[in-house]
Amino acid sequence: MRTLADAGPDAIQLSPGEAPLLQELAGPHKPALVLRTDVANVYGASPPSTLWSELVEDAVARALGLDAACIVVNLLSLPGEPELYRQCVRNVSKLRAACEPLGLPVMVEPLAMKPGDAGYGVNGDADTIVTLVRQAAELGADVIKADPTDDLGEYGRVVEAAGRVPVLVRGGGRASDEEIMRRTEAVLQQGAAGIVYGRNVVQHADPAGMTRALMAIVHEGVSAEEALAALTARA
Amino acid sequence: MRTLADAGPDAIQLSPGEAPLLQELAGPHKPALVLRTDVANVYGASPPSTLWSELVEDAVARALGLDAACIVVNLLSLPGEPELYRQCVRNVSKLRAACEPLGLPVMVEPLAMKPGDAGYGVNGDADTIVTLVRQAAELGADVIKADPTDDLGEYGRVVEAAGRVPVLVRGGGRASDEEIMRRTEAVLQQGAAGIVYGRNVVQHADPAGMTRALMAIVHEGVSAEEALAALTARA
Amino acid sequence: MRTLADAGPDAIQLSPGEAPLLQELAGPHKPALVLRTDVANVYGASPPSTLWSELVEDAVARALGLDAACIVVNLLSLPGEPELYRQCVRNVSKLRAACEPLGLPVMVEPLAMKPGDAGYGVNGDADTIVTLVRQAAELGADVIKADPTDDLGEYGRVVEAAGRVPVLVRGGGRASDEEIMRRTEAVLQQGAAGIVYGRNVVQHADPAGMTRALMAIVHEGVSAEEALAALTARA
Amino acid sequence: MRTLADAGPDAIQLSPGEAPLLQELAGPHKPALVLRTDVANVYGASPPSTLWSELVEDAVARALGLDAACIVVNLLSLPGEPELYRQCVRNVSKLRAACEPLGLPVMVEPLAMKPGDAGYGVNGDADTIVTLVRQAAELGADVIKADPTDDLGEYGRVVEAAGRVPVLVRGGGRASDEEIMRRTEAVLQQGAAGIVYGRNVVQHADPAGMTRALMAIVHEGVSAEEALAALTARA
Amino acid sequence: MRTLADAGPDAIQLSPGEAPLLQELAGPHKPALVLRTDVANVYGASPPSTLWSELVEDAVARALGLDAACIVVNLLSLPGEPELYRQCVRNVSKLRAACEPLGLPVMVEPLAMKPGDAGYGVNGDADTIVTLVRQAAELGADVIKADPTDDLGEYGRVVEAAGRVPVLVRGGGRASDEEIMRRTEAVLQQGAAGIVYGRNVVQHADPAGMTRALMAIVHEGVSAEEALAALTARA
Repeated sequence: MRTLADAGPDAIQLSPGEAPLLQELAGPHKPALVLRTDVANVYGASPPSTLWSELVEDAVARALGLDAACIVVNLLSLPGEPELYRQCVRNVSKLRAACEPLGLPVMVEPLAMKPGDAGYGVNGDADTIVTLVRQAAELGADVIKADPTDDLGEYGRVVEAAGRVPVLVRGGGRASDEEIMRRTEAVLQQGAAGIVYGRNVVQHADPAGMTRALMAIVHEGVSAEEALAALTARA
Repeated sequence: MRTLADAGPDAIQLSPGEAPLLQELAGPHKPALVLRTDVANVYGASPPSTLWSELVEDAVARALGLDAACIVVNLLSLPGEPELYRQCVRNVSKLRAACEPLGLPVMVEPLAMKPGDAGYGVNGDADTIVTLVRQAAELGADVIKADPTDDLGEYGRVVEAAGRVPVLVRGGGRASDEEIMRRTEAVLQQGAAGIVYGRNVVQHADPAGMTRALMAIVHEGVSAEEALAALTARA
Repeated sequence: MRTLADAGPDAIQLSPGEAPLLQELAGPHKPALVLRTDVANVYGASPPSTLWSELVEDAVARALGLDAACIVVNLLSLPGEPELYRQCVRNVSKLRAACEPLGLPVMVEPLAMKPGDAGYGVNGDADTIVTLVRQAAELGADVIKADPTDDLGEYGRVVEAAGRVPVLVRGGGRASDEEIMRRTEAVLQQGAAGIVYGRNVVQHADPAGMTRALMAIVHEGVSAEEALAALTARA
Repeated sequence: MRTLADAGPDAIQLSPGEAPLLQELAGPHKPALVLRTDVANVYGASPPSTLWSELVEDAVARALGLDAACIVVNLLSLPGEPELYRQCVRNVSKLRAACEPLGLPVMVEPLAMKPGDAGYGVNGDADTIVTLVRQAAELGADVIKADPTDDLGEYGRVVEAAGRVPVLVRGGGRASDEEIMRRTEAVLQQGAAGIVYGRNVVQHADPAGMTRALMAIVHEGVSAEEALAALTARA
Repeated sequence: MRTLADAGPDAIQLSPGEAPLLQELAGPHKPALVLRTDVANVYGASPPSTLWSELVEDAVARALGLDAACIVVNLLSLPGEPELYRQCVRNVSKLRAACEPLGLPVMVEPLAMKPGDAGYGVNGDADTIVTLVRQAAELGADVIKADPTDDLGEYGRVVEAAGRVPVLVRGGGRASDEEIMRRTEAVLQQGAAGIVYGRNVVQHADPAGMTRALMAIVHEGVSAEEALAALTARA
């Protein structure tokens, strides 16, 4: 946690059980807390027969207590799972209503999945993502965190479907530094407002360097090539 | 949104996520907001095995916050889907109870559907629409938004089933200007109180002209023929 | 509504959407309002696979607002439909608890049905009705509205099962004036406290005359024969 | 009711709809009211496919209003019916929580049933009863009302499983006066704190005599033989 | 209860119905109360077709009333039972939210089970336990009570998955004194914070001696060998 915080990302996404670790860090310049508010059973190599996504009880009160800057909730669309989608619509809708009077922003994370080699994997189909992102916007998301489309050239459609809602891009599976940098540059050029990366930072050999390189692309307009060079120079 | 608002319709129907766009428009003469309060999964080419229609959480508080003039909710009747209908009855009933002390009008949108080429399509059978409209009236709808009957000559029965509740007519699928104008004239002659059109205005080459032509029929008693001529003259 | 009200029945049973019509009538001598508080999908020629009976939201507040003298709710018993019965038990129980502190009477309408030629029809079996009526009484009904038994001579058992709760008799399907008068006389002789007729009054050629004839039997002890003669004399 | 009350039992168990009858009796020495708080559909010759046991709404408020000395609720265990058992666990738990701050005692009635000739009958297996009684005690029952075991000699195990919670014994099906007296003596000798009999008193030719004979065994330590002789002497 | 309390364990885990027994003990040095807050139907030789785990109503208020030092709730993972797991996630989440403002610690007891000879038995697979323990930590457990892994050498992974949350080790099935002592020593060496044993203490021939021997290992760093010798010396 210390290492990640010192790398200086804008925010870190944590579960209610992990969040106190961030809160307990000393010092004035901590990243903002994005609190995950739901638990789902769609992950893993052998997903069960009934899929669900449950909101943490009193998620908004918990977010206030933990001084979260934002909360995040999934909008999961899996083939043949209308009840899962229904529950996610309810989850988003409940959080939106609870956060409205508090001014606490709600980040919605539309996530289309499809059967993969082991369990479900990300579905990068642009049409599917666009439909989900539009639904998230209609439900009143303040920020949308969406997967990159398989065809990166289609990402502008995702941004357009979100309307006036800023879109942050998920990192997706583990990829090479070069691919990550290029993808980041591509989605930003098509209107994405930022990025939310997990494994590609946390599991990187140099998380701090990776964080700084990505932030340079997002905040300073550095090119993918320059950022990659700066990262490589640290090694 | 600016374009639509400038065309001067009486009202625009928007979701909670879209409604702030209308609210943020400057100027004193904005159309009234009709806030959609439910999300359903019955649309699209491949409807899922379980169909549902969920109310947005705290829909009435949201409507007040967004300064809505009216809220709208579906009463969906699909063959072999009694649970969907049940949920819609609950939705209407909940909204009616919540709006009663506030004086906020509830528009109920009875919508009979049947299996079509791709997913469900509108069912224009007069008996089915009449039964649904009567149910909406018994539940206490303040306004009813109903589909045109396949046989336009039967529309008077729909108006009669609504009793003292005014009936607005839905636009249905994309049709020629002439058909739209004639249909509008026909349902108004049989007692409909107004119209609520979507694609036939928004996707029209001249949305402002179409809006004005239709409003002339509704508010000024202009004939379909005259309205069509006025619209054509703009082209 | 005016016609019916002028006929001077003691009360009229209406849905929440219809009730304002009665309230808006001018004049001091209006019939009392019995407000229907539930919506069921068991009627019609093709009942769906899942049957339900839903309470109108905030039914008791609605009843107070509409100045209802009594509310009415079904206790539906259909073969092979334990969930429907369960929901009705819940409905009765909820209303009873909500009305207790207000002193608002709850009329329970036990209704046994069985598969008929088209959809479900009334089941006039005395044992079945007696069991249902006893359940209604145990749940705390203030008034019970029960079907006539196929064998009218068994109606005393229904009255007995209700204990100290007064029993009003439903009209059942459309029948001849003579049959209606005789049935009314028979059930009153066995202890029924009154009648609640629908189609046999509303669809009668002379609703006002029919209402007066029936009220004479109930309130003035006029015989079926005399009442029939008085009705015929109006024609 | 008058007859039963005059016989002077310690308490009478009634449903919410029947209880006012007791309350309306004049005189200072009325039996205490034990209010039944649930409705189940497990009884009768043809139990339905889905079994349930529903709490009466606001049962505790009703009990206070009716001046009940105790409330009673079932804990039903039927083979292959885990949802029924689950609902009963919820029912007991809800009542226990609601009664805790009021000091109103909760009598739990564990009832093991098994398929019989017509519908379900009582299951007198000692192991099954012991398990159920232990569950009732763990849930916080103040009093437990349990069936006699088939082998009366095992009743001590039931009393032991209840721990510090007093056990009252249910009457079971109709039996001869002699059998009833002997059974009563036997269970009391093994630690039962009292008895709760229904049909064997109410349907007896001499309910008052039967009540007094049984109370003599319970409260005065009279033997079964003596009590039987006293009862016979009244005939 | 007196015997167990006199043996001086740090705490005793009891159901709401059993807990008053502890509270009623006289004297200043009673063990702390850990209140069990759920009831499940997964135990026993013939588990039913639908498995569930229900929270006791108002469990936290009950815990406060009983002066509990901690509450405990299960997180049950059984193969092919996603609804059971979902309910447990809800249970943990509800308790966590209710205890947050009160400062009452929540002990989560992740319990992986698998089909055994008769009903379900404990699943000691390290990967499964690690996943469950991580989930418990993310949900915000204050203390985690986890089974020993089949391979005791893997227990460090369990402790690591819990992060900053202390892990107490469950006793598992009945085993020899020697095995119990060794296992206790092993898990403590890998970072476990303590132990929670049931049958291996309660069903022991010398519960007080067993309790003291185990507490010597946990609190005084006595070796398994020494503790065993001390216990044997009492015999």
